[in-house]
Amino acid sequence: MVAREDVIELAKRRGFFFGANGAYGGVAGFYTYGPNGAAVKDNLESAWRDRFTVRQGNMEIEAPTIMPEAVFEASGHLDGFDDMLVECPECGESHRADHLVEDDTDIEEAESIPIPEVEELIREHDLRCPACEAPLSDEPVEEFNLMFETSIGPGTGQTGYMRPETAQGIFVEFPRLKEYARNRLPFGVTQIGPAYRNEISPRKGIIRVREFTQAELETFIDPEADEPPLHEVADVEVRLYPATEQAADDGEAYTTTVGEAVEEGVVGSAWVGYYLGVAQEWYERIGVDTDRFRFRQHLPGELAHYAADCWDAESQVGAAGTAAGSSDGGEPRDEGDWIEITGFAYRSDYDLSKHAEGSGESFTVFKQYDEPETVERATVDPDMATLGPEFGGDAGAVADALRTLAERDPDAFDAGEVEVEVDGETHAVDAEVANFSVEEVTENGEHVTPHVVEPSFGVDRIVYTVIDHAYRTDEVDGEERTYLALDPEMAATDAAVFPLVSNDERLLDLADDVTADLRAAGLSVEYDDSGSIGRRYRRQDEVGTPFCVTVDRDGIEGDGPHTVTVRERDSARQVRVPVADVGAEIAALLDPEDDRAFEALAASYGEIETGVRTG
Amino acid sequence: MVAREDVIELAKRRGFFFGANGAYGGVAGFYTYGPNGAAVKDNLESAWRDRFTVRQGNMEIEAPTIMPEAVFEASGHLDGFDDMLVECPECGESHRADHLVEDDTDIEEAESIPIPEVEELIREHDLRCPACEAPLSDEPVEEFNLMFETSIGPGTGQTGYMRPETAQGIFVEFPRLKEYARNRLPFGVTQIGPAYRNEISPRKGIIRVREFTQAELETFIDPEADEPPLHEVADVEVRLYPATEQAADDGEAYTTTVGEAVEEGVVGSAWVGYYLGVAQEWYERIGVDTDRFRFRQHLPGELAHYAADCWDAESQVGAAGTAAGSSDGGEPRDEGDWIEITGFAYRSDYDLSKHAEGSGESFTVFKQYDEPETVERATVDPDMATLGPEFGGDAGAVADALRTLAERDPDAFDAGEVEVEVDGETHAVDAEVANFSVEEVTENGEHVTPHVVEPSFGVDRIVYTVIDHAYRTDEVDGEERTYLALDPEMAATDAAVFPLVSNDERLLDLADDVTADLRAAGLSVEYDDSGSIGRRYRRQDEVGTPFCVTVDRDGIEGDGPHTVTVRERDSARQVRVPVADVGAEIAALLDPEDDRAFEALAASYGEIETGVRTG
Repeated sequence: MVAREDVIELAKRRGFFFGANGAYGGVAGFYTYGPNGAAVKDNLESAWRDRFTVRQGNMEIEAPTIMPEAVFEASGHLDGFDDMLVECPECGESHRADHLVEDDTDIEEAESIPIPEVEELIREHDLRCPACEAPLSDEPVEEFNLMFETSIGPGTGQTGYMRPETAQGIFVEFPRLKEYARNRLPFGVTQIGPAYRNEISPRKGIIRVREFTQAELETFIDPEADEPPLHEVADVEVRLYPATEQAADDGEAYTTTVGEAVEEGVVGSAWVGYYLGVAQEWYERIGVDTDRFRFRQHLPGELAHYAADCWDAESQVGAAGTAAGSSDGGEPRDEGDWIEITGFAYRSDYDLSKHAEGSGESFTVFKQYDEPETVERATVDPDMATLGPEFGGDAGAVADALRTLAERDPDAFDAGEVEVEVDGETHAVDAEVANFSVEEVTENGEHVTPHVVEPSFGVDRIVYTVIDHAYRTDEVDGEERTYLALDPEMAATDAAVFPLVSNDERLLDLADDVTADLRAAGLSVEYDDSGSIGRRYRRQDEVGTPFCVTVDRDGIEGDGPHTVTVRERDSARQVRVPVADVGAEIAALLDPEDDRAFEALAASYGEIETGVRTG
Repeated sequence: MVAREDVIELAKRRGFFFGANGAYGGVAGFYTYGPNGAAVKDNLESAWRDRFTVRQGNMEIEAPTIMPEAVFEASGHLDGFDDMLVECPECGESHRADHLVEDDTDIEEAESIPIPEVEELIREHDLRCPACEAPLSDEPVEEFNLMFETSIGPGTGQTGYMRPETAQGIFVEFPRLKEYARNRLPFGVTQIGPAYRNEISPRKGIIRVREFTQAELETFIDPEADEPPLHEVADVEVRLYPATEQAADDGEAYTTTVGEAVEEGVVGSAWVGYYLGVAQEWYERIGVDTDRFRFRQHLPGELAHYAADCWDAESQVGAAGTAAGSSDGGEPRDEGDWIEITGFAYRSDYDLSKHAEGSGESFTVFKQYDEPETVERATVDPDMATLGPEFGGDAGAVADALRTLAERDPDAFDAGEVEVEVDGETHAVDAEVANFSVEEVTENGEHVTPHVVEPSFGVDRIVYTVIDHAYRTDEVDGEERTYLALDPEMAATDAAVFPLVSNDERLLDLADDVTADLRAAGLSVEYDDSGSIGRRYRRQDEVGTPFCVTVDRDGIEGDGPHTVTVRERDSARQVRVPVADVGAEIAALLDPEDDRAFEALAASYGEIETGVRTG
């Protein structure tokens, strides 16, 4: 497995990503994508959009990143979106208290431990500041809210926050979005965009950042009626690591199918199971190595109280300090870190109910019955002339309590007297005074608060995984080589074109023509005429460009059809292809629908001997 | 010209855009794109990327939206990115003082008037609070910084700001980006992403928002050597409104070519002229109406001090309160508002010099000479044994001053004595003590601070313009109709498929097959089986879907080839097309490279009579 340092170094050198604001000393937790990284990320987002928006028939929206305080009061982020902060009394450095506990003890999920216990653990283990070794035993551990706060408008303004997840921009607009869905469940809404977490101490470089991109799908379903099309992915194989296996001493992840996992109840929600299957296929499509991938169920302590079942997609990537080496296949080694790249959650009606409560608006869908239904409805019509004198100022509250009781428990009115509680005091009311009755009403439908099923993808971590899993080293012509075996759909560049020498006008013209041809075929093409040809190959190998075309003298002279060489990245094999065919041949090699392989190309035109390969 | 209200209403109803957080009462200046708007915006960004990144051979990056304070100290935003704020003493409402002046006087560009004069104008004209009519004469006008401020990390943290323009994310990374460009000028870097301005009082709805999307291209050039490929766009016709015409009583915009405008010096920078031409063609491609479009030069008072020449692309869109009506072509009317949709600026070396100064890093490119050059360099080697006793503690500073003087003005050493200033005091030094000499040095090149040419596109305003300019009303079969005549490249949906009735399984199956066929041809397809066929057409007309396919009984029975109807949006004409050909025919109609027009389709297959058109 490749070491994290090697990936980071290559990413910086080849324009994938690097710490932002370097000239100003940098700010932890902020990264910039260079041209190759931005291209890979854009490819990844397009592949996601294709699978989770277009092919699923979902709607994509784009909401602002700054949202007002009321939204996060309702969503629970203002109160609950916290990490545990402990500050060093000597050097002033801030640390996540739970991480310090995890680092120095056997405890694994310290995040869910209450603060007083964490303080106790710090004392017990005499934990110290990782920066200056000062003891932290007497320091208070505090909740630190992870939202970036700002002020909207001048003066005292209005408090706003950078959204901690794109999902809230979808939830708050539900009343309008359901109109666009013509008030029919189920429907899905997606969003790809920035989200923010003001991490206390972003230690893991690109893995734990303060600004990142999410791709989220919120599926709104009628929990009583809507089923996912599970058959579409029932046979998809997934590697599961359920909570029970994590708790067991000899527990481990195992492979099963989505269909079996749902049938056996390992995955509790068919909707969650469905999305695990869809996502599994998508991860394979974009080049995540299935040997370094699993779905891990949340432990009971990790689960949000509203979430019935949650699974994380996790990939294994090189850890900091891991020795670099050949990583072309083979078993994953233990040194890698497992990182969460997607969360799958059955969120019940939590989000929409909270926003209905917070905003006072309706977040329901009117579900029309096939036939109008006649239902019995219990009502009361309390005799205020009696209640008034009896209960004085409480009379109104007693009447309300009677109404609520009638809806909730009509049978209570069967007895001669009913009891209701107002402000902690129990009042007895004569059933006749309540004027209880049961009426038959015809209803055309009911208002349903949809449940939400959410796959939430961390785009940056998936980009990182795709690069980490594509990282290879080998030897070509006796020289060490590093290359990225990226899937062509993900690669920043489809093909590179090199004129062998830069002092022959005819060669340069032909190289220009070939570049134009390839671009006309819809390919993204890099033209490079600087440095030795070997160096240019190595550069493209490290970028992950699937094919390089070199234009040499055989392209402009000689008997028979003039040719250029086409080199395949992973094998470094080269084939001479007629100039006239090179555009079509490379397009065919890149087309996932076409089964033209490099092998077949080599068979058609004949391969060049190795010695020539890297000039 | 359409009224702004009509565009806004259609945008909300059909899922283009709407004020965000409506359930919570909304927050001025924040909009959400619904599914159709997000799709149009995505199409527009793709078209921009194609033209300004891919086809120009530029590099696209993606930088964080939160940046540290030091960046904006250097860029000048911390000090200068202000608007004039006046608060109402009665109701507390905040207003832009310059806008109040513009609204109630003949003054047009009040933004550039100094604060004391604005205060004087408020007194003089007895301006009042637009909300509550309270007098503002005694209220102070203050500078209000338009950046959203936040705090990075816990505790006192580090101050950060939401970037006011994407450009800064490019400028600060110049030292690394030039490496990716292999240290060769010119090169261009692009970025598409959110930018933020904490507007005092965002009055104009979607036109003046607090969070928006920019698409910026920063071109780094050697001002001594690099010329743009002006010939590519020399013949492009542009409508210019130069500063001189704006100042003249009877001045007006006029049409010329890019080549002429540059040659005559109307556009001062050939680079700016080049981008005006490229942009003009791009605006036409995406459907901006050239009759409601112009390039307006900045007035001397508007120009930033570092900017040699600036032009804004402006579109004319419906003003608030303008009466709606037929707007299919014809002369633009005066009621429209001119809004800035792009800025073109020659920014000199201002940005890179400021960041070099602010960060202490090098923001230059080493420009290698073709041949090494021998240059004379003046140096001094002051005799400290003499300076020490003479100047005491100032001796070091005097020596430094002599070195600086030698570089700046070697001739000063021709006299027997030179004068230097240290801490405001002038010291005379014997030229011999300075040990002045001139050496010949061989240099291989020099460090150049590139100049920046920047086209900066406001994506949201261009989306707005494209929708406004596509808005049409007409009459079909005696009924009023509204439709968006969007260019197919911009339309949210390529085609819609309708089964005529929803209770015939065979029809529904065929409609599914046609939908799948069209999707397989790479089209974005909407399937709709709800409501009358006329209603479904109207829905797609308002979304701007170019073609609708209706599947009726002729698709499943009868002699000869089974057919479906294809309806063209703008003309509402319909043609019966064999089921087997419909995918290929619509793909051809949509392909800008293919010249298959609906006219030709009608000629091939025969048109259906009008009466049938809208069911």
